Amino acid sequence: MPATKEEVAAFMAAEFPQSKCVVEAVGDDGATVSHHIGPGELRPGGTVSGPVLMGVADVALYVAILGKIGIVPLAVTTSLTINFLRKPSADAHIIADCKLMKVGRTLAVGEVSLYSKGSSEPVAHVVGTYSIPPKRDSQDFPAS
Amino acid sequence: MPATKEEVAAFMAAEFPQSKCVVEAVGDDGATVSHHIGPGELRPGGTVSGPVLMGVADVALYVAILGKIGIVPLAVTTSLTINFLRKPSADAHIIADCKLMKVGRTLAVGEVSLYSKGSSEPVAHVVGTYSIPPKRDSQDFPAS
Amino acid sequence: MPATKEEVAAFMAAEFPQSKCVVEAVGDDGATVSHHIGPGELRPGGTVSGPVLMGVADVALYVAILGKIGIVPLAVTTSLTINFLRKPSADAHIIADCKLMKVGRTLAVGEVSLYSKGSSEPVAHVVGTYSIPPKRDSQDFPAS
Amino acid sequence: MPATKEEVAAFMAAEFPQSKCVVEAVGDDGATVSHHIGPGELRPGGTVSGPVLMGVADVALYVAILGKIGIVPLAVTTSLTINFLRKPSADAHIIADCKLMKVGRTLAVGEVSLYSKGSSEPVAHVVGTYSIPPKRDSQDFPAS
Repeated sequence: MPATKEEVAAFMAAEFPQSKCVVEAVGDDGATVSHHIGPGELRPGGTVSGPVLMGVADVALYVAILGKIGIVPLAVTTSLTINFLRKPSADAHIIADCKLMKVGRTLAVGEVSLYSKGSSEPVAHVVGTYSIPPKRDSQDFPAS
Repeated sequence: MPATKEEVAAFMAAEFPQSKCVVEAVGDDGATVSHHIGPGELRPGGTVSGPVLMGVADVALYVAILGKIGIVPLAVTTSLTINFLRKPSADAHIIADCKLMKVGRTLAVGEVSLYSKGSSEPVAHVVGTYSIPPKRDSQDFPAS
Repeated sequence: MPATKEEVAAFMAAEFPQSKCVVEAVGDDGATVSHHIGPGELRPGGTVSGPVLMGVADVALYVAILGKIGIVPLAVTTSLTINFLRKPSADAHIIADCKLMKVGRTLAVGEVSLYSKGSSEPVAHVVGTYSIPPKRDSQDFPAS
Repeated sequence: MPATKEEVAAFMAAEFPQSKCVVEAVGDDGATVSHHIGPGELRPGGTVSGPVLMGVADVALYVAILGKIGIVPLAVTTSLTINFLRKPSADAHIIADCKLMKVGRTLAVGEVSLYSKGSSEPVAHVVGTYSIPPKRDSQDFPAS
């Protein structure tokens, strides 16, 4: 049973309060998140740090999986491949568009294109895999 | 200076005569190739061998790069990441759709979705990188 | 229950008769296979084809997993990342040394260094993941 | 001309003052860095955030390259593949051991094994590629 954008956003806010990612859209086979770049996330030369890009892509993939199969707090990243393509802008949000390629019983695979907001050419591309726990019962969230 | 589908196909036939890949389309930022599966390329259980899929993806990426920057015989694969998503059909051609994400001065990066012909769900996904030789003068090919 | 080098070699010979890989060693957390390069596996310039290297690495990883957990015919590759490092020799065997990094309940991850026999510098490096079927009962093999 | 551990550490401190990584060792073909885990780097369940691990691996690879070819401030990561293997300890430093596999004219490739300090089993494994700027003149650093 899929989760709505609001359900996923509420889960992310409760479980990952330190994340600065905003859930922009959750679709049938994908999701979009945005991330405001702060000064601490820049590297010399005014570019966005690579680990920040990886982290945003990881969240986009997680959000897309939650949207597809429901709130599964124990899903964990098993692998991630990133290719850095262009220098991100220092003063634009990072937008991450995730497209799920497979959501199986135990593994989900998706790709994420990362953009500096306002540009149509990706700054990085990620393929990532999540392991899904055996029992995939959607949990009551938030617990009350 | 880009190369046409016919120029790329002629180059591939001359340089890689053992390749069974057929150049189906060459576009501005991508290419499509197909590959007829023979009995020697199947694995137990009637599935297409993983290395065959990797090889077809590699050709699709090479063809897309040639289409974009012209006939550059010395471009070589530097890295390739493949995710296997679904069991390919034993009796359908493999179709590889490559989309270039970046073609820089020394590196080209593209992604390839692989399908069993007739199915819309990918059997595998590849991200690959080619190193492009410093001088990118399109060569006269075939030499005459 | 682990499998010996002889058990793994017998399984590979029966199930993958078309494979030219020779099982050289099976250890506690790794394996070594070799592969004789034939003329059909060379590319222009006298180098070994990339898909051949990927295939040998894939076999080395499979052999290492079989050695570790016993004969599990249904283990399948889920992902593989290869970096091409140096031009392989056209007239030397390819040697693939696999080291397992994790063998979990459902996933196994290993890395493989590939060499031209006689050289100590790797021609390529692979990280690959296998999915292991839920029930891991060692099968009676060969069935009799 | 290689750089010493002290030279690399001084460069990192000056250029990446926000990095918490400590340069532990710089060798001929590799390097070791450590990273103290703070509360902001933990995820629910008490595990270290994936992007933190990626970031530490990226630094280890950069440090190893600087140690090998000298202070090259413009080297940039072009790709990185991480496999998460085990849950890191929440209260141990992360140790990253990088081994360079190739340092070519324009590309360097290395692998990094990440550990929770005190444990011999890796929590993650990374393969990464850096692009090296055409001119590789070691710069006078620190500038004086």
